[in-house]
Amino acid sequence: MTASRLIALDWGSTRLRAFLLGDGGEVLQTRQSNDGAATLKGADQYAAALAALVGDWRADHPEVQLLACGMVGSQYGWREAPYVRCPADAAALAGQVLKLDDSISIIPGLVDDAAQPDVMRGEETQIVGALALNPALADDACLVLPGTHSKWARVKAGRVTGFATHMTGELFALLRQHSVLNRLMPADGSSPASPEAFLKGVDAAREEGALSHQLFAVRTLGLFKQLGPEQLPDYLSGLLIGHELAHELQGSQPRVALIGDPALCARYAQALARFGQPEPLLLDNTAPAGLWALAQTMNLN
Amino acid sequence: MTASRLIALDWGSTRLRAFLLGDGGEVLQTRQSNDGAATLKGADQYAAALAALVGDWRADHPEVQLLACGMVGSQYGWREAPYVRCPADAAALAGQVLKLDDSISIIPGLVDDAAQPDVMRGEETQIVGALALNPALADDACLVLPGTHSKWARVKAGRVTGFATHMTGELFALLRQHSVLNRLMPADGSSPASPEAFLKGVDAAREEGALSHQLFAVRTLGLFKQLGPEQLPDYLSGLLIGHELAHELQGSQPRVALIGDPALCARYAQALARFGQPEPLLLDNTAPAGLWALAQTMNLN
Repeated sequence: MTASRLIALDWGSTRLRAFLLGDGGEVLQTRQSNDGAATLKGADQYAAALAALVGDWRADHPEVQLLACGMVGSQYGWREAPYVRCPADAAALAGQVLKLDDSISIIPGLVDDAAQPDVMRGEETQIVGALALNPALADDACLVLPGTHSKWARVKAGRVTGFATHMTGELFALLRQHSVLNRLMPADGSSPASPEAFLKGVDAAREEGALSHQLFAVRTLGLFKQLGPEQLPDYLSGLLIGHELAHELQGSQPRVALIGDPALCARYAQALARFGQPEPLLLDNTAPAGLWALAQTMNLN
Repeated sequence: MTASRLIALDWGSTRLRAFLLGDGGEVLQTRQSNDGAATLKGADQYAAALAALVGDWRADHPEVQLLACGMVGSQYGWREAPYVRCPADAAALAGQVLKLDDSISIIPGLVDDAAQPDVMRGEETQIVGALALNPALADDACLVLPGTHSKWARVKAGRVTGFATHMTGELFALLRQHSVLNRLMPADGSSPASPEAFLKGVDAAREEGALSHQLFAVRTLGLFKQLGPEQLPDYLSGLLIGHELAHELQGSQPRVALIGDPALCARYAQALARFGQPEPLLLDNTAPAGLWALAQTMNLN
C-alpha cells in the first residue's frame, strides 16, 4: 500500500485529537472533540465519535488508514490492545498493534513489570515521536510527560527500559476542587499565576518532608496570611511537582526532555532549574510524529 | 462556683458531641448530632443547634456551665477563639479561654510556630484529657490522634512542645471517592476488611518511594489482579498511613499513645508494629476528660 495519507488519532480519556498527515508525516489538518474514552461505551459510540470528527476525511480518502493510541485501547476502551513489556522499542510496539478492522489499528500500551508494575497508554507513542524528531535522545535520556498522570520514562539505545507514573495532576485537581484546602482559595481559574508561590512550594518539597504533612501548609500559610488566597493554588502545584522531582531526580540523571502542554512543561522546567538541573529540551505533543513513525515501521502507508 | 455539673461540648467540623458530666467528671449522659461547625453559619444557627441537642439539660440545671472545644472556635465557627503558642500546657489553654457569654466558653486552639506553621482545634483538649487520665504520659510521649487530619504531638514535662498535621484521612476519602483509583474498587462500604492488603500497603510505604507514584499501584495491582477489587481500599489505607508513619518515626521516639476512634487506632497500631514499634497505648475520645480537667483549671465548676 502506498496511500499518501494517514489519519493519526491521539485518543485519551478526556479528548479525541485527530491529525490528517500527508507525505512525510507533515500535519495537514488538526481537529479535536471531547469524545474521550472515559465518556464512551461500546463499539457503536466509538465508531460514531470517529465518524463525527473525521468522517469527511475518510470519505475524501477512501483508502486511508487510521492509527490510534491512548485509552481507546484500554480495557474500558473500544477494544483492549495488549501491553508490550519493557524494554521495548518502536518495532516491538508495531509488532503488537491491534487490528480493529481493515482500516483502523490501535497501538499497544507499555507495561513496566517492576516490583510496582506500571502502565502507560498513549505516552509510548509520544516517546516514539520524540525519538523520531530528536534522534540524539535515543541514546540515553529521561523523557518526562507531565499531566494528570505524569510519566518518567528512561530511554537507552532506542528502547524504553522502564518508567514510573506520578498522580501529580490528579492530586492537584482533587485537592484544588474537593479538599479543605479549597476553602481559602479563589474560585477555579480566577487567580493570576504566582511564580513566587510556585517556587516556594517547590523549595518546601526539596526539604523532603512528608507530602501529607506539607500539603497542610497550604491551609496554614493561607490562615496566617503568609500567602494570599490567589497564591495558594500555585503553592500547591509547586509542592506536588516538587515532590515528584525530588524522588525522580535521586541519583544521576541523563538529559531531561519534557513533552506535552507548553504551559505545564514550563512549570516543570522552572522546578527543574530549582533542583539545579540543566535546561531541559521542550517538546509539544509528539503523538502525531509517533503515530507516523509507527505507521512506517508497520508499512501501513 | 461549685456547680456539680458540666456540659462538655466536643464540637468539630462534622459533629457536635455533648457530654453531661457529674461530680468528679464522670460521664452521666452522651448525645450527638450532625450539627458540625462546617454546616452552621452565624451565632443563631449555633445557638439553635445547641438548644436542640442539650436544651433540656440546661433547663434541668440552670446554673450549669458549658465548655466547648473544636472547630466551633475557628474563624468560620461561632466566634473565633485565639491560638495559644507551643510549648503550652493546660494552664496556658485555660488562661486564654474565650467567654462567649456568662455560661458558655470555648477552649483556644494550639499553634506550632515552626517553619511550616501548624494548627489544631479540639485535639489540644483531647491531649489534656489523655494526660489527665494517664499522668505517666506527661513526662515524655508522642500522642497521635488519627483522623481526617491526623495530629502527631510531642509532650514533654506536661507541655505540648510541637506537633504536625498529616492530611491522611482526607487524602484517603478524596482518592477513594473521586479519583481514577475509585473505578476498580467496589462501592463505598461494601467490602470486607483485608488486613493483608493493608499491611502490604504499609510495607510498600516503608520502602520510602514517592507517595504520588506509589498511589498509582492501587490501579496497577488491581489491573493485573495482584489484589482483588475489595482489597484495594485497604491497600490505599495502608499506603497512606504507612507514609505518615515513615516520616514521623524518623529518629528516636518516646512511647506512642493513640487517641480516637478504636477501629482507626487499631489500624495505626498494626502499622506501628510493622515498623517495629512497641505496642502503643490506646485511648478512646478523651475530649470529655480534657474539658473536665480544663474546667477545673479554670475553677469553672
